[in-house]
Amino acid sequence: MLHMSRLYHWSLDPAGRLVRLCLGEKGVEFEAVESPPWSPHPDVARLAPGAVAPALVQEGRGGHIVAVGTRAICEHLDESVEGTHLLPLHPGERAEARRLWAWVEAGFEQVTDNLLTERVMQWVRRDRQPDSEKLRRGAHTLRGRLTFLNAMVEVNGNVAGRNLSLADFAAAAHLSAVDYFGDVEWKAVPDLKVWYARIKSRPSFRPLLADRLEAVRPSAHYADLDF
Amino acid sequence: MLHMSRLYHWSLDPAGRLVRLCLGEKGVEFEAVESPPWSPHPDVARLAPGAVAPALVQEGRGGHIVAVGTRAICEHLDESVEGTHLLPLHPGERAEARRLWAWVEAGFEQVTDNLLTERVMQWVRRDRQPDSEKLRRGAHTLRGRLTFLNAMVEVNGNVAGRNLSLADFAAAAHLSAVDYFGDVEWKAVPDLKVWYARIKSRPSFRPLLADRLEAVRPSAHYADLDF
Repeated sequence: MLHMSRLYHWSLDPAGRLVRLCLGEKGVEFEAVESPPWSPHPDVARLAPGAVAPALVQEGRGGHIVAVGTRAICEHLDESVEGTHLLPLHPGERAEARRLWAWVEAGFEQVTDNLLTERVMQWVRRDRQPDSEKLRRGAHTLRGRLTFLNAMVEVNGNVAGRNLSLADFAAAAHLSAVDYFGDVEWKAVPDLKVWYARIKSRPSFRPLLADRLEAVRPSAHYADLDF
Repeated sequence: MLHMSRLYHWSLDPAGRLVRLCLGEKGVEFEAVESPPWSPHPDVARLAPGAVAPALVQEGRGGHIVAVGTRAICEHLDESVEGTHLLPLHPGERAEARRLWAWVEAGFEQVTDNLLTERVMQWVRRDRQPDSEKLRRGAHTLRGRLTFLNAMVEVNGNVAGRNLSLADFAAAAHLSAVDYFGDVEWKAVPDLKVWYARIKSRPSFRPLLADRLEAVRPSAHYADLDF
């Protein structure tokens, strides 16, 4: 690689996970800098007004490039780096992959805000009681999203078609974060479970499966490829 | 144009407005089909599982192409149609335009859900009282977004840099919808007001300024280019 890349991210943030999967799929080496949502790295706010992690900084022949957020980073990587296509080449398939990538990001927002954030904040402030109403609401939304994704995978093989795309990596990024806490009922979604076992065994997934929160072990099957 | 394009949209939906601006900037002729959120056109659900307007269908040399949602449609138009660039060509500027486009769409979600939806639903069901708490919350969020956009425009000239991009068209699409009801306090954001007067005078904006809800006149300055 000609570029020096640095990624500001937090290990269990689904947006940061999606970017790490894309960097992995493209074979881009990068320096990772932790920037947790409750205590962002001071560099991040200086990158651009209102910037929050994930943020990618590259130095190379093209000069200094700053890309912030999944939409900017993942499209930039697909446009600038050879290797696995993150989006299909056919315009119609490309549009469908982007539609479902956007669907995943919008649809999991409530899951992240309620379920994942409660789990994480309980870990950050150890004395804090989780808000059981939020956990319940997040779990309910998650079940709906799982049902939809299972139906898509059953018909298409992958989320948005025959080939893996950003729709799959985004879904896997979100599911892997809640799966750390054991919140995914895989038994209820057999087709999605097969799809997840397949995507989980890709080399790009390995760093995510190695993530560990201090004093919170992941669910028994979190890093198990044959769960 | 070689393509026959059909757009399913609803006139005051900011997402549909963004797509109409992009089609206008690219000079793409299209047939418009109304699909209001509270009564979607039956075609839309058949286009793709879970699809909602805006949805673009094109028939042409490349076959049948369906693009649903702003991320899929706007990127598709920029990739496939010559004319005004919706995203800058330099990778760093491109990333910044996509970051702020995503920021606008995420940041105005609450404005749409609270302020705009209340205004529209009051019009749809004439006997319904608006939820004043939602209106208040929506107006508060809108003020914050306006302040940020004003600061960006003051520094950059446009939202994401020197040139107009999807970040500007997305912001203008959202602002124009709430401006129909007179909910934008332009006096508080003088730089943004100058920017909006400029973008409003583009030919691509004319169809939006001609939109009228039956029995609800737009705010006095809605279609005024010199407001």
